[in-house]
Amino acid sequence: MRAGEFELIEKIRQLTTGAEGLRIGIGDDCSVFELAPDKELLTSTDLLLEGVHFRLDWTNTYDLGRKAVSVNVSDIAAMGGRPLSLHLGLGIPAQFEEKDLDSFLGGFVAAMKDYGVCLAGGDTCLSAGPLTLAVTVQGVCSRGQAITRAGAGAGDDLWVSGSLGDSALALHRLQRGQAPEETLAGRHFDPRARVELGWQLGRRQLATAMIDISDGLAGDLGHLLRASGCGARVELQKIPHSAAFEQALSRDAALLELALSGGEDYELLFSTRPEARADVEQLSLESGLRVTRIGELNASERCVFQTLNGTPYRLKSEGYDHFSNRSGATSRG
Amino acid sequence: MRAGEFELIEKIRQLTTGAEGLRIGIGDDCSVFELAPDKELLTSTDLLLEGVHFRLDWTNTYDLGRKAVSVNVSDIAAMGGRPLSLHLGLGIPAQFEEKDLDSFLGGFVAAMKDYGVCLAGGDTCLSAGPLTLAVTVQGVCSRGQAITRAGAGAGDDLWVSGSLGDSALALHRLQRGQAPEETLAGRHFDPRARVELGWQLGRRQLATAMIDISDGLAGDLGHLLRASGCGARVELQKIPHSAAFEQALSRDAALLELALSGGEDYELLFSTRPEARADVEQLSLESGLRVTRIGELNASERCVFQTLNGTPYRLKSEGYDHFSNRSGATSRG
Repeated sequence: MRAGEFELIEKIRQLTTGAEGLRIGIGDDCSVFELAPDKELLTSTDLLLEGVHFRLDWTNTYDLGRKAVSVNVSDIAAMGGRPLSLHLGLGIPAQFEEKDLDSFLGGFVAAMKDYGVCLAGGDTCLSAGPLTLAVTVQGVCSRGQAITRAGAGAGDDLWVSGSLGDSALALHRLQRGQAPEETLAGRHFDPRARVELGWQLGRRQLATAMIDISDGLAGDLGHLLRASGCGARVELQKIPHSAAFEQALSRDAALLELALSGGEDYELLFSTRPEARADVEQLSLESGLRVTRIGELNASERCVFQTLNGTPYRLKSEGYDHFSNRSGATSRG
Repeated sequence: MRAGEFELIEKIRQLTTGAEGLRIGIGDDCSVFELAPDKELLTSTDLLLEGVHFRLDWTNTYDLGRKAVSVNVSDIAAMGGRPLSLHLGLGIPAQFEEKDLDSFLGGFVAAMKDYGVCLAGGDTCLSAGPLTLAVTVQGVCSRGQAITRAGAGAGDDLWVSGSLGDSALALHRLQRGQAPEETLAGRHFDPRARVELGWQLGRRQLATAMIDISDGLAGDLGHLLRASGCGARVELQKIPHSAAFEQALSRDAALLELALSGGEDYELLFSTRPEARADVEQLSLESGLRVTRIGELNASERCVFQTLNGTPYRLKSEGYDHFSNRSGATSRG
């Protein structure tokens, strides 16, 4: 296996054809099917493999169950949809303990309740290798309202929800044998999908394009820009951080990279027309979730991260390739 | 992991609740969602794991790609639905060769074309363990027409499509280091989902209950009977076999067991009211697929396999448990 993830996805995309009712196929957060006159069906599937996406010596199985739901549901949020149901494929090693399985299921069910989704089906089997999770989520939105990655245009504002870098900083600590601060660990092991924000952005038709940040701001912004055919200028000092991240950053400025290309934030990155600014801020107030305008889109083909003194910041890494596994075991649903 | 597959599924079922629009949840071939006024959405997910469901020294990757599609689509056929789309989760070991991946994708795409389904999305990543496939299929049928396992009643006829035992006999040969006869190998490595038959049984409202035979006739009939709350009498000599299977059976009568509990036939097992007999036979003629009446359902709680002299046949095994892996590496999607 020498090809990277994006080359493989491109190869697969070229092999396949469209179908009746399929509005969006490979290459967005969800597929979109026009199944009903008034509704669109959103579907996304994620593999979560032990040793690639998670390590059982780092995460407890309850959190793993929660995260398996959240990272999947986050793909529905990123389309502006409402999650409905999950299907769970579960490959269990023979030595996996019953109590760990119970704990996994407990976390899975608790997260399902948080998001109001049901488990509609699945498949269970023995695994001859590591613990294997395959989660498929289905959701809905009003017809024509699914927010793809491709609708942004020059002049649009660029926004991000919550704060960036916490999850990657937790992983950074773990990889160095350090215990991450509790709030950081929470963001890494138990991220929350921004379902209400995504849903309202879709319902109120505010976002022109949207993606959830799983591969890192730089990488996922790159996906959005390529799909939309535009460029962006992002103001580095506007990127929102948590207090814990700010504190770490004040001691080691190089950690900024984690907020740009670390990934697994599961925040929403979206664009809006400038005239929607007040509506977005109102929505942020209503949902109790911080939303920050970090830059704007332009007609260039470049994405520039601009420092306070106006010079561009050079990223060390553009984003996450699921085949390079450079970050060690960590989930990018 | 000590609990069996069915105990685990029961545990999961008890942990979860229903949802708006969910007509059938865990425990049938597909989940059924009432998403549109005139349509039902059918969804099923299958894990196919190297070393559990397939061995790369037995199957070529082209056939594996075909089979990954067929076993999944078979679940839609078993509900009387029309398959629409697939989502593919693909965990690829670092040492997996590009040409094998291309061949896998080639088989996958060829089978998709056979069934008229599209690949709508997926997830690709590195696997730290064996080759990992997670396939989710979505299909549709008219509202209220999904054929569950639960609709059969005493007095119904019991039918099976095609012939039984070929796939299990091929596996039996492989496990003994013998090359299976070509027709048997074809049934094992490249089974065909009985989509047209299932669809017509649903459309013409002929079947009262249906399931596809993945775990073996005895096991899957057991699922249907438990769901429907009835018993059955099956006439052993009526169970349809291929010429290759008959020939092997004439040399070793014990091979009969493979047609009863071997599994992976991917034939349709269904019940109809006795007055539908002529319609079923007409449908068999139209579709060019043999359909055989093998017994009938009754109000007992037992399932009896009756030999020619009227005595009951004692099964050595009731069916396949995905956690016991007794059959070695073989796919039961």
